[in-house]
Order: sequence, then C-alpha cells, then structure tokens
Amino acid sequence: MSLNSKDLLGIRELTVEEINLILDTATPMKDILKRKIKKVPTLRGRTIVTFFYEPSTRTRSSFDLAAKYLSADTIAISPSTSSVVKGESLKDTALTIEAMGANIIIIRHSAAGSPHLLAKTVRASVINAGDGTHEHPTQALLDMYTIREKKGTLKGLKVAILGDILHSRVARSNIWGLTKMGAEVRVTGPATLMPAEIEKLGVKVYMSVEEALEGVDVINVLRIQLERQQQGLFPSIREYARLFGLNKQRLALARPDALVLHPGPMNRGVEIAPEIADGTQSVIVEQVTNGVAIRMALLYLLSGEEDSNEITG
Amino acid sequence: MSLNSKDLLGIRELTVEEINLILDTATPMKDILKRKIKKVPTLRGRTIVTFFYEPSTRTRSSFDLAAKYLSADTIAISPSTSSVVKGESLKDTALTIEAMGANIIIIRHSAAGSPHLLAKTVRASVINAGDGTHEHPTQALLDMYTIREKKGTLKGLKVAILGDILHSRVARSNIWGLTKMGAEVRVTGPATLMPAEIEKLGVKVYMSVEEALEGVDVINVLRIQLERQQQGLFPSIREYARLFGLNKQRLALARPDALVLHPGPMNRGVEIAPEIADGTQSVIVEQVTNGVAIRMALLYLLSGEEDSNEITG
Amino acid sequence: MSLNSKDLLGIRELTVEEINLILDTATPMKDILKRKIKKVPTLRGRTIVTFFYEPSTRTRSSFDLAAKYLSADTIAISPSTSSVVKGESLKDTALTIEAMGANIIIIRHSAAGSPHLLAKTVRASVINAGDGTHEHPTQALLDMYTIREKKGTLKGLKVAILGDILHSRVARSNIWGLTKMGAEVRVTGPATLMPAEIEKLGVKVYMSVEEALEGVDVINVLRIQLERQQQGLFPSIREYARLFGLNKQRLALARPDALVLHPGPMNRGVEIAPEIADGTQSVIVEQVTNGVAIRMALLYLLSGEEDSNEITG
Repeated sequence: MSLNSKDLLGIRELTVEEINLILDTATPMKDILKRKIKKVPTLRGRTIVTFFYEPSTRTRSSFDLAAKYLSADTIAISPSTSSVVKGESLKDTALTIEAMGANIIIIRHSAAGSPHLLAKTVRASVINAGDGTHEHPTQALLDMYTIREKKGTLKGLKVAILGDILHSRVARSNIWGLTKMGAEVRVTGPATLMPAEIEKLGVKVYMSVEEALEGVDVINVLRIQLERQQQGLFPSIREYARLFGLNKQRLALARPDALVLHPGPMNRGVEIAPEIADGTQSVIVEQVTNGVAIRMALLYLLSGEEDSNEITG
Repeated sequence: MSLNSKDLLGIRELTVEEINLILDTATPMKDILKRKIKKVPTLRGRTIVTFFYEPSTRTRSSFDLAAKYLSADTIAISPSTSSVVKGESLKDTALTIEAMGANIIIIRHSAAGSPHLLAKTVRASVINAGDGTHEHPTQALLDMYTIREKKGTLKGLKVAILGDILHSRVARSNIWGLTKMGAEVRVTGPATLMPAEIEKLGVKVYMSVEEALEGVDVINVLRIQLERQQQGLFPSIREYARLFGLNKQRLALARPDALVLHPGPMNRGVEIAPEIADGTQSVIVEQVTNGVAIRMALLYLLSGEEDSNEITG
Repeated sequence: MSLNSKDLLGIRELTVEEINLILDTATPMKDILKRKIKKVPTLRGRTIVTFFYEPSTRTRSSFDLAAKYLSADTIAISPSTSSVVKGESLKDTALTIEAMGANIIIIRHSAAGSPHLLAKTVRASVINAGDGTHEHPTQALLDMYTIREKKGTLKGLKVAILGDILHSRVARSNIWGLTKMGAEVRVTGPATLMPAEIEKLGVKVYMSVEEALEGVDVINVLRIQLERQQQGLFPSIREYARLFGLNKQRLALARPDALVLHPGPMNRGVEIAPEIADGTQSVIVEQVTNGVAIRMALLYLLSGEEDSNEITG
C-alpha cells in the first residue's frame, strides 16, 4: 500500500485509508525511536530539505531528527538568513532546491497554499509543515496517533478543541482528520476567536467552555498567541486563563480518563494550568515523541520505500 | 592527475589542464547526483567547514550537499552568529577551525584576497566561495561545465556577459576561465558599471547590448544588485530592464541555439524577462545541478582521493 | 571504569579519579582526531543536541565535531532563532528535546545552575558548556589535559590564572580542577575584577601580576570582555594591556619552559601580546584540538560505551 500523492499537503486531501496507513507505519518507527541506537539505513542517500519561512525549532527539529534516524541527509534553508530567496520567487527557490538533489522538501510558510504551489512546481515530494492559518497536517496526524494509541480507536470519540480556533492551523487539520476518522469534534474558545461558519466543517460550536468539555474523551488545548491580546481579541492574559484556560475544575467536566493534548510550546498558567500540563491525563510530552514517529513514517512512505523491509534494520 | 595546489583560490591561478581535470571529474559526480541514492563513501571521515562572512544559502547549500553526497562531515560557521570571530583575527579563526580537524575550509568573505591569506595560514585546503568583487571560481567552473556539456567545447565560442561587470566576481572568474579555454568573451552593460581597462583581461567591451549579443553562442546574464540603483549607478529598475534586460528581442540577436545562463537568484523582469528564464534556451536550473557536481569534483580532487576509484561506489 | 553521574555539570562535582578517567580517555580520541579519516562508529544512532542560549561557535562546533567523529547525530537548537522556547520554560524545552530522542543534551546558559536544573528534569545526560559565571567544565578539562600532556603531571605545578577572575567561569572551573589535581593555583588581575573571598577556593591571590608569574610552570591568560571597560572595571584597553597583558617581560618571570594557555578567542595586543600568542611557549592552537578530544571522551563516557572497544574502529 502507498499514499495516492507524491506530497502531503493537508489532511483535507487524505482518505481514511491513507490516514490509517500513516498511523500504522508510525508504530514501527516509534519502536526505532525508543531504542538506544536509533538508526536504520532506510533513506540513506536521500536528501531532505527543510525550508521554513517562519521560525520553528520544534517542528523543524522533529523533521530533522526523523530524517536522521532514517539515515537521510538533511539541510535547512531559512529565508531570513538567506540571500537565496531575496527577490527570488518561491518557485525559483524551489526549483533551485530540487536541482541540488532534494528528494523531499518540507515547507512552512505564512501564506496558505504555498506548499500546493510548490508541489506543482517540483517533482520532489512536498510536505506541508504549516501554511498560514490553513493546515498543519503532521501535527494533526501526531495528535490522532496519540489519541488512537491510548484509546484504541478514533471512531466515536468526543474530542474538544479549546482556544483560538480562528487562527489555528492545528485546529483546522485536526477537524478535517478527526471528523474523517469518525470522531465527534467540538470547538470552543473566545467568541472573538471563533471563525464564522466553522460548523460547515462538521463540528459543534460551544460558546460555553464548560458545556464543550462535558463528557469528552479528549481535550486538545491550543496555544494562545499572546500578540492576539494586543489586537484586542481577548481582554488580558489573566482573563483568558480565568475564562478559557484548562484548569482542574474544567478538566473534571470531561470523562475521568480524558486525555489532555497541547501542540506546544505551552504558555503555562494561561491556556493550561501547570498541574494539568504535568498531570496524569496529559500526553503532551508523548505527543513530541509521536511527532518524530509520524514524520519518520511520512518520509518513509513518500520515499516510495514501503515495499522494502529495511525499516527493521 | 591532480591539481597543482592544495587550494582553489581563483580561476586566474588554474591552468587549462587543471580546468579540464575539474570539468572532467564533475561528470561522474553528476551521475551520482542524479541517482535516487546519492551517496558514495569517498570522503567518509573528512571534515569540511563552510565559513561564510557573507550570507549565501545557495552557494553554501551547494557545497554542503556536495560534501554530504561524498559522505564527508560538514559544519557551518557564520561570523554573524558567532562569538568565535568577534575581535578575533581571520588568521586565529582559521587556525582554530583547522585545529578542530577541518580538512577543507570553504570561505566567502567581502575582502578580496581573504582566501589567499587563509590558504597561507593553514595546511588544510581552502576553497574560495567568493571574495569581494574579485573571484567566484566555483561559479565560473559550473558555468564552463554547463556550456561545455551543451556545446561540446568552449574553444571558439562567442560568450557575452551582460550586466554589472564592475561589481561582479562571477564576471571576473568567467573572464579568466573562458579566455583561457579559448572562448571569445564580450562584456556589456551600463557604462557606469563597466570597469576601466577591462579590455586588458582579453575581452571586448560593447557599449551597445545589441551589438554585444549579435551572433553569440552563450549569454551569461548577471544578477543586478538592486542597491546599486540607490547608489545612482542606473536610473531605475524599469529603465534597467528596458535598456539592459535580456528579453525576446535581444535574445533573437544571438545564434538561434544560444544558451542563456544566470548565476541566480534572478530578479525576474529586471535583468531577465520571465519568458527567457523559463524558455527553451535557458540552462539556469541545470546550472544549479552542475554547481553541486563541480563542488563534488573539487572536494574530491582537493582531498587527494583521485587515485582511489571509490567514486563509483 | 565509568563516571559516577549521568551528567557533567561541573568540575567541582568530579573526583580525582573521574578527572583522570576523562583525561586518559581523551588520548585515544586525540589519535582518532589526528587521522585523515576521523570517523569511528562508536556512537552511531545516538542523538546529541546542542542547546545554546548564549552564542558560541567555538564551543558548539567543538562539541558538534566531537559527536560527528564518533558517528552520532547532532542537532543544534538556539533560542534566539527559535519559537520553541518563546514563553516556554527551560524545563518544558528540555522535556521536548528529550522526547525527540536526545541521548545527550549540551547546554550553555547565562544563568548559573541551569544545567543542574536540566539534569534533574531529564533522563538524558546533560553536559554543562558554560553556565553564567559559574563553571565551564570542558574548558578546564581541556586545559588540564594540555598541561598534563606537556608536563607529565599536574601535581605540584605552579599555575597562574591572569585576567578577569570575577566574571570567568573558565577561571572557576580551572581552580576547582587544578587544586583537586594537586597544582598550586595563583590568580591575578585588576583588583576590580578579583572576587572577594576567592582564597577560600584554595588559591593564592596576587595583586601584582609580576609576583604572580614568578617561577610558574603555566600561565592561563583569560579573555577580557571589552564591555567590562564600559562598565568602568578597567580604565582602557591600552591601560589593560600595559598593566595586565602578558608580554615578553612578564613571561620572562615564569619558568623558561612555562606554557601559555588562552581559552580563545584572543584579543591580541590586549590580554596577550601577539608574539607570545604565536611564540614557542604557546599551546593555544593545541588547546583547540585537545578540546575536541576531551569532548569526544565525555560523549563516549556518558554514553555508557566504555565497555565496548569500538573506539579503535
């Protein structure tokens, strides 16, 4: 089995079978990652370029390590420190990267749709590592992997996404993925940060955080961008914490075995109380490990290596 | 056969035989680069340091990948983010890099002659990746490789270099190389950007772009630095494009099979019209691939590995 | 034999036996480093993260190369260019790095004690690459290695440390190490830069540089931070050089075979005269090589590989 496309541009484009294939492939990858010697020769001689227009050490490092554990070569290109890209179109930069031998290009860009443009320009595989407020598919895949690993399935689960839904590509990718996989998705947060017509994506909107959390199996807490406060989208950090932060009282409304996810980095004491972040229901640190495993799975599947059995190497 | 020097400092210092050796060695390197598995063990355990005082993702990435495809270890040192170099002389920094085990140091510096100073200080090999407006030898080598590959030879070809000749190390290195290899070199561009006494290098100066392009086999279009406009060296971007940009009408003056080169990154619509950049006569994307191959060849030759036959690995 | 702790946090915490073990292990590492092919498979599949809150290409590159020569994978995380760490606690960042698979985390931080906090948070090994003005243990180890290699032993040697003792973690780590190993340590420099009660660490304080250097076997010259002058801690660079710089006259007070060390980067003509830096008694360039060897030894010992004999690979 293999993915239908040479690229991973968004969860929206994936079928249920493709999502399952990626999640299933991540499990042997996670096994490799837990070894002392985390190295298999699977992608030796392949070249993976991380091309991030927005800074992100977390996501970039996760991809970088995923590539290294599979023995691929990696290079990082940052437009900020780069004369490559000054006055050069995204397309020309992409063609240049491909001409240097890149097999897979991982892009993060502030403009929604940039990865799609790139994917049409180059024969190399393109992975979307976040495009504007549009999608962040690998985050959604690792979130789904984490939930499925703990709960056995995604089907029929009640998942609440809490926070700045409006600006969150994490929320959008999770919504596409979770609804496809048969979960019931609820969204909640400040009314000023709730996109109009979000119900059309098949989610239930709750203006009350408390009602949204009632009986859920999973709470995915979004990172609040503190600059939104300066934009007047919420009154103050203290107020945000009081009205929308996940604390003990709110967590108690969910099922007793509910999982708490957060894409990181956390603003402790703002969107999440420290005792919840460190509590027994939190799977936040494990999400990071799963993120590397999911990215290993994707690099492997997009490299067309799925017929070999080198991953046991 | 091998290079006469431990270093590659400029095209000016190379013999015709050395240029041919480098170009010939790049061909098997290009074959490696086109494979899915672009990895040979040739330089395993060698350490290559890129040491760039001026930002350049394009050239640095090209060297970095060239080294990785040959299994060398690479590290990048940037003075801007570096306390190494603060208040430290270039010589002390070079000795430090060598003492850490560097076999080859690749330097880009705004001061002409810096690579030569470095080469005298260290026993490691030094490659000039651009020194001020002086030389950019690997660019000229990849340009010559690209032309030779398409035309079979450099001898007797008419090559026009178009643009800011005054500030261009690419132009200078190309002039040294092409004249050595028996090509007829013409230079043209704004009079304010034409160095005095450039004829002494054995080129023909044309004040008319149209006359310069008449019947040529190759047009090498230089990148215009947009800051030169602020310095009053040309009236405006629009005027530059109108008077000096390579467009359909101008290209039609050259031979019908003339090649169009550009070192990148391009200012589309300024020094080159988009339809020329993407046209059938453009070899601009292929130059990038050839750049990696040329740098692989140089790393290989300077490592003294030319008697082994590991490159077929 | 092995280290008692999973971490290297400071020289203060090490026993004499541990210091000897590290120094002894560095010798075969230095042999590897001197080969043309500096690569052994010892740490293949291990992941080493350099996590530097303060810029330092010199120390970071030294660790990076040490890791690469042992075939480990390395990634660099810099908070300055990183959204990972923005608004995230050191602890959360450390847990994230560990969750990605890091076996060893190398940290430099402006706050004394940060590596100790980190070491308690993660199961991965932590190496202190400099914490505030507290310790810089790998620098002291490489200094001790260099002295021992030249003099045969540290015991009974007279070592003068010259410069800004107050702000120097290099001085502090050297004092802990050298006194443990049985050397007699003297400190000297501007009175404004001499910490109160430094004698309690077992050193002799000399207000006269000349008296301090009288008959010593080793002079370790500290780098002067030029910004201390703006803080009024010394009158001018010229005055500093005149009153405290190591020059020919001062060096002549030491034993004729006295060694001159400097952690680099040097301010030539300020704390050290150029002819001393380049003179026959200087071991400054060799310190750099020894620094890589010491770091290879530490990575090896902390990886728990000391029972294998792969280092001869």
